[in-house]
Amino acid sequence: MTATIHSLGGKAAPSLDAMIHLVSSDLNRVNAVILERMQSEVVLIPELAGHLIAGGGKRMRPMLTLACARLLDYGGDRHHKLAAAVEFIHTATLLHDDVVDGSGLRRGKRTANIIWGNPASVLVGDFLFSRSFELMVEDGSLKVLRILSRASSIIAEGEVDQLTAQRRVETREDHYLAIINAKTAALFAAACRIAAVVAERDEAVEEALDSYGRNLGIAFQLIDDAIDYASDAETMGKGVGDDFRDGKVTLPVILAHARGNADDRLFWKEAMQGSRVSDADLAHAISLLHGTGALDDTLERARHYGQRAIDALGPFPGGAAKSALIEAVEFAISRAY
Amino acid sequence: MTATIHSLGGKAAPSLDAMIHLVSSDLNRVNAVILERMQSEVVLIPELAGHLIAGGGKRMRPMLTLACARLLDYGGDRHHKLAAAVEFIHTATLLHDDVVDGSGLRRGKRTANIIWGNPASVLVGDFLFSRSFELMVEDGSLKVLRILSRASSIIAEGEVDQLTAQRRVETREDHYLAIINAKTAALFAAACRIAAVVAERDEAVEEALDSYGRNLGIAFQLIDDAIDYASDAETMGKGVGDDFRDGKVTLPVILAHARGNADDRLFWKEAMQGSRVSDADLAHAISLLHGTGALDDTLERARHYGQRAIDALGPFPGGAAKSALIEAVEFAISRAY
Repeated sequence: MTATIHSLGGKAAPSLDAMIHLVSSDLNRVNAVILERMQSEVVLIPELAGHLIAGGGKRMRPMLTLACARLLDYGGDRHHKLAAAVEFIHTATLLHDDVVDGSGLRRGKRTANIIWGNPASVLVGDFLFSRSFELMVEDGSLKVLRILSRASSIIAEGEVDQLTAQRRVETREDHYLAIINAKTAALFAAACRIAAVVAERDEAVEEALDSYGRNLGIAFQLIDDAIDYASDAETMGKGVGDDFRDGKVTLPVILAHARGNADDRLFWKEAMQGSRVSDADLAHAISLLHGTGALDDTLERARHYGQRAIDALGPFPGGAAKSALIEAVEFAISRAY
Repeated sequence: MTATIHSLGGKAAPSLDAMIHLVSSDLNRVNAVILERMQSEVVLIPELAGHLIAGGGKRMRPMLTLACARLLDYGGDRHHKLAAAVEFIHTATLLHDDVVDGSGLRRGKRTANIIWGNPASVLVGDFLFSRSFELMVEDGSLKVLRILSRASSIIAEGEVDQLTAQRRVETREDHYLAIINAKTAALFAAACRIAAVVAERDEAVEEALDSYGRNLGIAFQLIDDAIDYASDAETMGKGVGDDFRDGKVTLPVILAHARGNADDRLFWKEAMQGSRVSDADLAHAISLLHGTGALDDTLERARHYGQRAIDALGPFPGGAAKSALIEAVEFAISRAY
């Protein structure tokens, strides 16, 4: 990958600034809910949850809820509590993911499981997950509860599915897309869709926002997968090659394996099964990813989903909210360049 | 502890038979919901969940929902789905508990974390937990959702609190009771309370059933704690002394520590901190538990809560349901004798 700046919209250096500016006062309210509702008399809970929640996350998913609500000119405040619920679900899955992966770093900081141990991470994740449902119940919309409980089941299914596919280099692209649709895109989609519910808009609006969020989520995950083979640790907040060493079969690997010769396929098989984890192996993997066009085409796939996300916004009137949502897609893609 | 049979009601050998008989047709319906709703295209999910769900559990909590509904002459079928939701929450917490404790045996069988690993147990637990909320959403009662999401948060808080207290022999009895109230009794209470909600009875009935379930749950847990120092592996389905070796500070230990001399206290401190885990140490622990009356008084405390559970049923008319609920308390207590 080159240092040249690309973006779907052709603008230089897209960022989340427009979205952050758009929702900043709402986001302060969401952060207040998050801070208030992660409290507990059991002091380890806010301590551990706060480490991750205050730890430099972008609040991407709650910002999407807020920006979509703005797109629909929603004037109420129900979305503050619900955006906090979405962030709690996300935080719970991150805590459990780090236990599942045995991760040591996230966003450049030591992970909660390293500092407080796996048991505390599992249980505080459970707490945040339960608390998210309490927030939804307080809001009182069965429709929102349906959307987010369904998304939560799908996320867990996707995570188990990913676990099953781990180290299996023969995973097909379709299967991989189903996994990231579940483990990543489902919550992006739900975060956007619930804005239509609180704004009391019709099913078509719900579907359009769901589609925006879902496609953005897939693009986001594909870019993350590519970055793992291209970025340095400083940019990523985690080490390059983590997926490689963990035997995570992501799209770049699936494409490189499918396009490789017999030697290449043997290399990928051994690598995903954990017997090729040296820096030289990683360097060889990266050269294969470039040589087969696997990285470029992963980014191309990401751009495809990014464009679908943008097109899903077609029916909505232009303005600051729509521009910010479009630039969020461009930003997601641009992270790889 | 002696081999003599005791029971609150003075009858010989109380059992769950009356309750099982009372709710058997309802329980078949609940089991059908459980079986149907633990399915997933991700085959590891029903495989792992089925291991635990089909693995000899008593279905105590869903039976309580069903028996309480029967006590209130409820004639509908909403409680089938909700009792399944309760069992899913319980199963999710068991899967996570076994990861947290590093347990190898439950109900005499190898635990899921041993067979499939911690990651799968964490994630399938998350799936069952999400699925339980989907079931509640399908039922559509915000009140039930409020009761069970609150109970879930409290369970997680109690589990984290217990983790904090682990190996701390100076844990006070009040603190310990707060922990078991949260981690065990809250779900018993909720399982009973939701029967009043589906039967559309007033707050007083809800409170009475909550109180029955809560006190039964506390008694149940105290008896479990005592059994860990008294039973053989065959009876318990797990090893004697598991809590001892894990440094779990339960009521028998709290009482024996508080009543012991300086040598005893040092012993308990060392034991809870993990430096006394031999069979001889366990034998010494058991002799101290008997010598100080700590085991007898743990059982006495359990009987106290059991009696409160029975008295909470006072306002309800006599009949098969009430008798079965009372005998369930007597059974819970009798397990220690």
